[in-house]
Amino acid sequence: MKQIEAFRSLVKKQKAYEYAMAIVGWDSETEAPKGAFNRRSEMQGVLSSEYFKLVTHPETIEIIETLFAQKDVLDPMLSREVQKAKKALDKIIKIPESEFIDYQKLLVIAQRTWEEAKAQSNYDLFKDTLAKIVAYNKKFVHYFQPDEHPYNVMLDDYEEGMSMRDYDQFFDQLKRDLVPFVKEVIEAAKDVRRDFVFLKYKEADQYRFCDYLIDELGFDRNHGLMKKSVHPFTWNTSPDDVRFTTRYMEDYGLSSIYSVIHELGHALYEQHIDTVWDDTLLTQGTSMGIHESQSRLFENTFGRSRAFWERHFPKFASIFPEQTKNIRLEDMYMAVNHVEASLIRVEADELTYSLHIIIRYEIERQLMNGEISCDDLPRIWNEKMVEYLGIEPKDDAEGVLQDVHWSGGMIGYFPTYALGSAYAAQFYHVMQKELPIDDLIREGSFDQINQWLKEKIHRHGSSKSPRELLIDVTGKDFDPEEYITYLKNKYTKLYLE
Amino acid sequence: MKQIEAFRSLVKKQKAYEYAMAIVGWDSETEAPKGAFNRRSEMQGVLSSEYFKLVTHPETIEIIETLFAQKDVLDPMLSREVQKAKKALDKIIKIPESEFIDYQKLLVIAQRTWEEAKAQSNYDLFKDTLAKIVAYNKKFVHYFQPDEHPYNVMLDDYEEGMSMRDYDQFFDQLKRDLVPFVKEVIEAAKDVRRDFVFLKYKEADQYRFCDYLIDELGFDRNHGLMKKSVHPFTWNTSPDDVRFTTRYMEDYGLSSIYSVIHELGHALYEQHIDTVWDDTLLTQGTSMGIHESQSRLFENTFGRSRAFWERHFPKFASIFPEQTKNIRLEDMYMAVNHVEASLIRVEADELTYSLHIIIRYEIERQLMNGEISCDDLPRIWNEKMVEYLGIEPKDDAEGVLQDVHWSGGMIGYFPTYALGSAYAAQFYHVMQKELPIDDLIREGSFDQINQWLKEKIHRHGSSKSPRELLIDVTGKDFDPEEYITYLKNKYTKLYLE
Repeated sequence: MKQIEAFRSLVKKQKAYEYAMAIVGWDSETEAPKGAFNRRSEMQGVLSSEYFKLVTHPETIEIIETLFAQKDVLDPMLSREVQKAKKALDKIIKIPESEFIDYQKLLVIAQRTWEEAKAQSNYDLFKDTLAKIVAYNKKFVHYFQPDEHPYNVMLDDYEEGMSMRDYDQFFDQLKRDLVPFVKEVIEAAKDVRRDFVFLKYKEADQYRFCDYLIDELGFDRNHGLMKKSVHPFTWNTSPDDVRFTTRYMEDYGLSSIYSVIHELGHALYEQHIDTVWDDTLLTQGTSMGIHESQSRLFENTFGRSRAFWERHFPKFASIFPEQTKNIRLEDMYMAVNHVEASLIRVEADELTYSLHIIIRYEIERQLMNGEISCDDLPRIWNEKMVEYLGIEPKDDAEGVLQDVHWSGGMIGYFPTYALGSAYAAQFYHVMQKELPIDDLIREGSFDQINQWLKEKIHRHGSSKSPRELLIDVTGKDFDPEEYITYLKNKYTKLYLE
Repeated sequence: MKQIEAFRSLVKKQKAYEYAMAIVGWDSETEAPKGAFNRRSEMQGVLSSEYFKLVTHPETIEIIETLFAQKDVLDPMLSREVQKAKKALDKIIKIPESEFIDYQKLLVIAQRTWEEAKAQSNYDLFKDTLAKIVAYNKKFVHYFQPDEHPYNVMLDDYEEGMSMRDYDQFFDQLKRDLVPFVKEVIEAAKDVRRDFVFLKYKEADQYRFCDYLIDELGFDRNHGLMKKSVHPFTWNTSPDDVRFTTRYMEDYGLSSIYSVIHELGHALYEQHIDTVWDDTLLTQGTSMGIHESQSRLFENTFGRSRAFWERHFPKFASIFPEQTKNIRLEDMYMAVNHVEASLIRVEADELTYSLHIIIRYEIERQLMNGEISCDDLPRIWNEKMVEYLGIEPKDDAEGVLQDVHWSGGMIGYFPTYALGSAYAAQFYHVMQKELPIDDLIREGSFDQINQWLKEKIHRHGSSKSPRELLIDVTGKDFDPEEYITYLKNKYTKLYLE
């Protein structure tokens, strides 16, 4: 009992530090003056080091180890928390402190090096830094789980329970079933009318439409807000405070709208988590993949449906009368579902998106296996782009350097994006049987959709593992088949019939 | 040497906590969703308690006591820091922890009780709570300095070096010289044209003018920003990050403008402090009074000068062409210097302002002396309003309940507002001899004014006490005569010649 109390108090302290650092982060991403950078970094350094002292304190270790030894007789939820705490602890304390610090420093430099390399479109500038990051990660996972394949450890880090075996199967199926189909659709989608989405859409008007949408889709403004930032993201400290951002491109009005719908998927997940988990390690979405399933469900499945635009096109047209002159609902529906081979992942459409992920997965896998070296990356990248998408980047900036993840040490993260889309298809499959989704969207009754998601998925936070959740909701394990079926149905109807 | 290092590291940690709590505070005042209140309070509670543990830790006490014992042989700046640290420490550790916690809880309730009492305009609801606050404060200052008069201890708390003797002298002089003069001016100012300042001024347009002003007055946007909040305030964590807020009243366009100029005075002070003090206890403005001197200098002395409107009226008129139709520069100048007997301190004009402060000072002094009880406050308040300003509040909301300070335990704070105006007059007196201030304002050359303030006042942070600073800048000690002369000159010219 005393150990449990001590554990509760430890978690609460940890959360208070995380809360403070999260608010500092939000401030820094959304409004802090540029010139405050150095001072903030210094203060963040002190706070992180205080946090590090807390989570690695001998007392902390003792509390966690003692409870971990009793994990089989603890209340199952407490046991799940303790196992999470133990895993996190092992990851930190098994790494020699000096290596940990050196790696943190490397990441700071890597961020800047990558930015510079991307700006100059020169991969060579980044190559050695990336090689060091890869080497550190191999070393660290070896400290942690010496008998496991390093990439498996990293994959599990971003998505509990997923391994190369699962992803290989998933991506092999996608390649087999999807690549030829995608090429066919791209060809058929060539002549879709899109000129009107590239007219000038004033930021203030885009804001008005987005502001309208977040009410329509059920965002709780009493426990959150929408703001502007350079890159869209969702942020939360508890279900009581969930915020997200978007950005406005005046020459491409759809960008802010689909960012908002995407981030809303993340934000609603966090707002709907039961506050009973507030002071535990079981709050927050259960995994990257499940989180992404919610954002994709909103962005693509709901947000790019015909029903969605039946509901919202009148409002859109009233805010943008000039841009939508002579544009019919059907034009809008086709434009938001346009498919093309493109170079940049974050701008890719729903259908080609996962092919971008496969390329990254295959490269990460081979890097961690030692089958390729960092020297080979641009060549391999470009070859794969041609193989899967039929186009080739003209330089590294729109090729291997486009994403920030590797410079932040995030190897094993990308696959969760594709996984999210596949999870979404599985959830959608079940939802469709239980709810008249299109009707609800058309009538603007998002309440019922949100209620379903909350009840089945959101409220559980991290109290279920992603796999447990998936099985509880859908009655079956991960199965990419439904994702492929969903895509084939949707895009066959759109372009091939 | 080891103790000095330990002290430095302690201060740095303290600053990191203060930084985090400041950012949380900024977020909460300017944008956090309402429904996040409870969770934030909880997290703030944990952070405050961690902070409290740090500043009262036996090691902390030992470091400070050891260095304090050597204060006469330390580097003078370090010695000043150590003395500040020791004073702060004594204030905390001499109070029994349980009483300290009970008092904190009382303040939380007091805040709500005062809000409720003000909303209902019913002082009786707040009376007992106020009595408890007064009693706690008497007790606490007794722990800290048993041989000193309690109100003196509290006055010194808000303005190092000031006592009842100083303030008595100051306010007696004001009453003698100013009260009859003010009555004369009020009579003469009755017919000043003001109708145009109460027309509709759209928020977005007010913002444009304010946004223009902050550049004109030399605010460094790379190290700060302006935002909107319910009550205007200035906020800073270091000279690299200084922010302020304003509020917009569409039926009174001058409110946002003078809030901005006022807060700019505070903000420029903080931006100009030498960053050499960043990691010490000598950063930030040296006292409430000196801070207020800077905001009053900007708001009243510069911002309500004829030169100021000669410079900025054209811009103002271009943003508000309808409202300023048939309005001449001279009308604007008179309107911003209108004088009247009014009930609410924060809306009072430059001339009557200090009379509002005298009333509060006399009440606080008698309360702390036990000469009056909390029961008598509404009656005494109203009598004094009649005596000094010739008008009587019709209820408690516009009388004794109008200000938040006492509900927050801030007794002894009010006098620094009047002191600031008097300091400002002393600084202005010297500046005028060294700079052609009106010409600089008229030409929009605020750089030179800011440079002077930075060099003489701002950059020193808290490395000089307010009195030292005043003497170094003006060559003399505090002297209310120059304040009275300034007011009499200005308002005689405006209304009595």
